[in-house]
Amino acid sequence: MRSITPSFTPTGIPTTFYNLFADAGLPLDPPLDPATREPIRPEKLGALFPQGVLEQEMSTAAHVPIPEPVLEAYAAYRPTPLRRATRFEQALQTRCALYYKYEGASPVGSHKLNTALAQAYLNAREGVTRLATETGAGQWGTALAYASRRFGLSCSVYMVRSSYAQKPGRRTLMELFGAEVTPSPSDKTEAGRRTLAESSEHPGSLGVAISEAVEHAVTHPGTKYALGSVLNHVLLHQTVIGQEAQRQLEELGVKADAVVGCHGGGSNLSGLAFPFLRLKLDGQALQIVAAEPASCPTLTRGEYRYDFGDTAGLTPMVKMYTLGAAFVPDPIHAGGLRYHGAAPMVSKLLERGLIEARAYAQTSTFEVARQFVQTEGILPAPESAHAIAAAAELAREADAQGRRRVILFNLSGHGLLDLGAYEAFLRGKLE
Amino acid sequence: MRSITPSFTPTGIPTTFYNLFADAGLPLDPPLDPATREPIRPEKLGALFPQGVLEQEMSTAAHVPIPEPVLEAYAAYRPTPLRRATRFEQALQTRCALYYKYEGASPVGSHKLNTALAQAYLNAREGVTRLATETGAGQWGTALAYASRRFGLSCSVYMVRSSYAQKPGRRTLMELFGAEVTPSPSDKTEAGRRTLAESSEHPGSLGVAISEAVEHAVTHPGTKYALGSVLNHVLLHQTVIGQEAQRQLEELGVKADAVVGCHGGGSNLSGLAFPFLRLKLDGQALQIVAAEPASCPTLTRGEYRYDFGDTAGLTPMVKMYTLGAAFVPDPIHAGGLRYHGAAPMVSKLLERGLIEARAYAQTSTFEVARQFVQTEGILPAPESAHAIAAAAELAREADAQGRRRVILFNLSGHGLLDLGAYEAFLRGKLE
Repeated sequence: MRSITPSFTPTGIPTTFYNLFADAGLPLDPPLDPATREPIRPEKLGALFPQGVLEQEMSTAAHVPIPEPVLEAYAAYRPTPLRRATRFEQALQTRCALYYKYEGASPVGSHKLNTALAQAYLNAREGVTRLATETGAGQWGTALAYASRRFGLSCSVYMVRSSYAQKPGRRTLMELFGAEVTPSPSDKTEAGRRTLAESSEHPGSLGVAISEAVEHAVTHPGTKYALGSVLNHVLLHQTVIGQEAQRQLEELGVKADAVVGCHGGGSNLSGLAFPFLRLKLDGQALQIVAAEPASCPTLTRGEYRYDFGDTAGLTPMVKMYTLGAAFVPDPIHAGGLRYHGAAPMVSKLLERGLIEARAYAQTSTFEVARQFVQTEGILPAPESAHAIAAAAELAREADAQGRRRVILFNLSGHGLLDLGAYEAFLRGKLE
Repeated sequence: MRSITPSFTPTGIPTTFYNLFADAGLPLDPPLDPATREPIRPEKLGALFPQGVLEQEMSTAAHVPIPEPVLEAYAAYRPTPLRRATRFEQALQTRCALYYKYEGASPVGSHKLNTALAQAYLNAREGVTRLATETGAGQWGTALAYASRRFGLSCSVYMVRSSYAQKPGRRTLMELFGAEVTPSPSDKTEAGRRTLAESSEHPGSLGVAISEAVEHAVTHPGTKYALGSVLNHVLLHQTVIGQEAQRQLEELGVKADAVVGCHGGGSNLSGLAFPFLRLKLDGQALQIVAAEPASCPTLTRGEYRYDFGDTAGLTPMVKMYTLGAAFVPDPIHAGGLRYHGAAPMVSKLLERGLIEARAYAQTSTFEVARQFVQTEGILPAPESAHAIAAAAELAREADAQGRRRVILFNLSGHGLLDLGAYEAFLRGKLE
């Protein structure tokens, strides 16, 4: 397996983000203006994002340089470890080799920091003073809170109410970084008030929280909006994961047969898989699997069409797999996967049959997470547990076929702030 | 600065534990039999510990080989990172250089795993089937639960009641590893029942929990007792920290002027400091500081005398600094530092003036922890925050004297399971 990355720092961090769609000449459908349903004019997006972010969102370069201050910030935790899950393999009694890229090793405990640092820097560079965002389980909010502090920005986080209640530690951590955290739906925004008027007990959803954060950004001077997944530039930033993993596998002399990530909006899957997809497009046999929750089956049961990214219809419309912008997923513990849509890039790859999607029930993901922590010692985030469940399933299938495959998955975050969910699991109180 | 370690693995893990007292010919006062007050006969200790542990407890070798299976287990997380706290230095506006050894990078989040793995292996090797232990904040219990699972042992943990209530996540994590967790004082032991009879609202203490675990071990066949600090063999195991740190500083061409650790029973301080103390005994200028809580000031205000390690008087008596075996510390959040005694080795070094001790109020340690997480991104355990407070104080003192010192401290664990304490701090509800 050859790596697609032109250069790394001496310690092994890629110096460029990898732009698969530009590199492979894959087409993308343009985002539409919610008012006119015509392709949106870039200046309208400028209300939400700084120029540097928009340039990356629409970049046609295959390799986008990582700014020096972002590389410096990455150096605190990158490259993240690539490990073989030897003891987990033994527990599964599989003949396959399972490797994982451990993004939970970042200071905030997940892959979200990769894009948070890049976005915070690009905003700070253009004089933005505050970022507004939403968060589900809190991993993205924590990452942006830390990144904002690092680059001197204030940060306002709208946190999905069901997660706000389930994960008080996440809120405390964001506040320690200096962020202002509001449970969503809230009465701070028109979108929030409208949702509360319909249902005062609304558990919240990423769709509603995005509406609130977008509204906050466009109504406050000096404030821009930041999104933790879905958009092209977010997926671009996450490709540091897959580039590192390719190089680390090369050093071990190992070739991956399958690459797996959990799927909420698409960023951790894409971050790991895009550099490998280049090889697949070049003819290498490679299975790419997106693992999603059965209770929010965007990729396995959604429609591929233009839809809004949020509930209130404030965002541009993008072409994606969607359960409908009004869909409110069950309050499962994998809050980061409770999203009605999917990244346009991931959707396009799925439509073309370049990746596949599988859905897993909540209890089964906690079962496999327990097996993983007992063998590997690392407690997975409930989101990441979906990737482990898929990797274990691929191993079982390969064993049944007498094949010895190499399966690489993204352990996108640790679950140390999700112990309430694990307690419910141990007590048999999980749906 | 030259390192005292004879050999490392190719990845940089020491292959031997360092026995400072043997190497330097420092004397130790023998443990006494609680019944006779005469030096205890080794076979009596055999009821609590396996032969392999006792040999290490009384070893006269300067370098004790680390068994291969333990080295293999260490390889999952060692060597741990040594980092310069550049951004924290900037926040302190100090001219000193602050380095930290980050033991929170272990799977269970603290240095405790270093000795847990060694002890679990030595017990399993001799056919022991279950380990009984106590835990304060839960870091030790979590480490032993994981290590027991790894080496095929069952594990019973008596957890100090105040911590059991403050940190439910810790209990869940231990249970995920398969351990049985009991709040202490409990009605499962004579020692627990006696304590509850005196006070049904007793918050628990490490002294009481040790009594319960020791009683559990001696009354259950196939069960031995494991201790997470204080004893010679525990301190011995932790010297992997300081040996690695010496080598990592050498690679950077840096010489430490001061070495700092927080102090509960003495193991994380000793683990970092003992290899450096060898150099100090050889004449190198070096300040060693133990940082303890003002509410449990064992080293700064205790007496140096023979005392029991537990409340019920079941353990051998050892010569140490002590607040008295009946002392019940306030239920501060740094539960791992709520111990009336201190390691005999640490006590001897303090008496000889080779190390010094300083005490810090709870609120001041949380203040400095907030400053640290905002700059370095890592949330310190409340215990470890004491080391940061001491390091910051040394930096201030050096600045006032116009000296530019290199200060190394042990960041013994992360605080992600202590967010309840941090929330109390943010809300102004901390004593």
